[in-house]
Amino acid sequence: MCSVLSRVRPFQRALALTLRYNIKTEGSSCAVTRSKGSCLGVSDGVDPLLNTRRFYCSRMAFTDGLLFRQLFESESCTYTYLLADTDNKEAVLIDPVLETLDRDLKIIKELGLQLKVAVNTHCHADHITSTGRMKTKLFGLKSAISKHSGAAADIHLVEGDEIKFGRHSLKVKETPGHTDGCITLVTGDQRMAFTGDALLIRGCGRTDFQQGSSERLYSSIHKQIFTLPDHCLVYPAHDYLGQTVSTVGEERKFNPRLTKSLEEFVQIMKNLNLPKPKKIDISVPANLVCGLHEI
Amino acid sequence: MCSVLSRVRPFQRALALTLRYNIKTEGSSCAVTRSKGSCLGVSDGVDPLLNTRRFYCSRMAFTDGLLFRQLFESESCTYTYLLADTDNKEAVLIDPVLETLDRDLKIIKELGLQLKVAVNTHCHADHITSTGRMKTKLFGLKSAISKHSGAAADIHLVEGDEIKFGRHSLKVKETPGHTDGCITLVTGDQRMAFTGDALLIRGCGRTDFQQGSSERLYSSIHKQIFTLPDHCLVYPAHDYLGQTVSTVGEERKFNPRLTKSLEEFVQIMKNLNLPKPKKIDISVPANLVCGLHEI
Repeated sequence: MCSVLSRVRPFQRALALTLRYNIKTEGSSCAVTRSKGSCLGVSDGVDPLLNTRRFYCSRMAFTDGLLFRQLFESESCTYTYLLADTDNKEAVLIDPVLETLDRDLKIIKELGLQLKVAVNTHCHADHITSTGRMKTKLFGLKSAISKHSGAAADIHLVEGDEIKFGRHSLKVKETPGHTDGCITLVTGDQRMAFTGDALLIRGCGRTDFQQGSSERLYSSIHKQIFTLPDHCLVYPAHDYLGQTVSTVGEERKFNPRLTKSLEEFVQIMKNLNLPKPKKIDISVPANLVCGLHEI
Repeated sequence: MCSVLSRVRPFQRALALTLRYNIKTEGSSCAVTRSKGSCLGVSDGVDPLLNTRRFYCSRMAFTDGLLFRQLFESESCTYTYLLADTDNKEAVLIDPVLETLDRDLKIIKELGLQLKVAVNTHCHADHITSTGRMKTKLFGLKSAISKHSGAAADIHLVEGDEIKFGRHSLKVKETPGHTDGCITLVTGDQRMAFTGDALLIRGCGRTDFQQGSSERLYSSIHKQIFTLPDHCLVYPAHDYLGQTVSTVGEERKFNPRLTKSLEEFVQIMKNLNLPKPKKIDISVPANLVCGLHEI
């Protein structure tokens, strides 16, 4: 198993193989929220703003020392996410795109980061990943993807795995439906969820190719994402309208597909009539080998 | 003077005309930073990551209850920013674009916000603002722009003005050079700066049309923006490479134009040879009247 990965066994004994100390050892949120005198109540999840307020009250104790950057690739409208521990500079990159490899390498270099893992939330159909190329540029970098994707990578992720970088971690939640190997990555404090193509802002991934299943996607989102705290920020792999972030609370309330019954959802997904992704015939085979299809 | 604006007179007597209570009355950052035991030192600004760490240590006391959304318009690569107080839901919108009016209205409605001010960082040449149209849709909304822009608006801003929304505020810093009427808006805690077309990520606004002056721009950025804390997040009006945010510390260290001497900067700006903005002949006259040029 990779040195940046910890895996929780069914009997809940953590395999603490890795770095420094666990996110749970960071500070105490109680002292902070009490000192504000306004965050002790439990929100019922009805008002997204109230949930956002709660989020702001609790964020500080857990995200001290986390660097976060959202990056956009305009051709496929893909978001790449860079997260790093500001103390030891260990970093993780989520869903990097071949076309923006140089941009991403530049920022990693400028900020002096040590990129440990480049992870794909699934085997993308609309763009080619840069993880393979990036490995040739950055010593020690490991690629990661779901075990159920069928794709080659240094690390094959399953439910409950944790990708650690410094004090921080990303926990793997399996969210199949768009493809069999879709995962959502959740920060240790459940403040941020990187939902890939499962949950998008006011939308969701399509289910009409690869191993798509509307029923599985509906179940994944409701059981694995909508059970996260309402204040949890939702960072998807794509947005086509210039939106950058949402929250679990907002999507539970406003997502026009996921607020419907399963039956209605399945009908909506059946009738999307989307064109075939332009690059699917190149991208999927390429992404099965970390984008190194030409080698 | 508009009820959401406060203006500091030269003799520093604040005209506290407005809402609820000042940002300075919010909580105490000392208790929070001390409880963490790691943020009492003063960074020398050399390491952008150290500065980011300091930012994360101090952010919570000041940004409790701030909702923030970054939105993108892909044709002109413009960022629009929505900020709101999560308690009383008063909101401010920065640099909204005509093409994304409906998207912006939808999110304001969904989140139940009361938009008080729609402010332009300057009279844009590359897109038409939606502030005029938005005023016809949202009762009580005021438009705002620099007094030195020459554009019509409900509020004409000058150096030191504060736009207040709930507990939060945006302070006006005049940063001319791209145009005479360019401003940078800085949150009360100096955690975020909305730099318009003055400072971009690893770049800056052009100075070859409207009232452009490389010398003034260089001075504005160095005196008004680079004097902000290194950890202050830089949110520009545009990015053409998919970057969403930087910091003052990063730009002071890595900006390829602003790290040069004034003489070198002027030469760089002279030799950019950029094409004329496609929409300038429509956008500038339109933006002089809040985008309501057809009425």
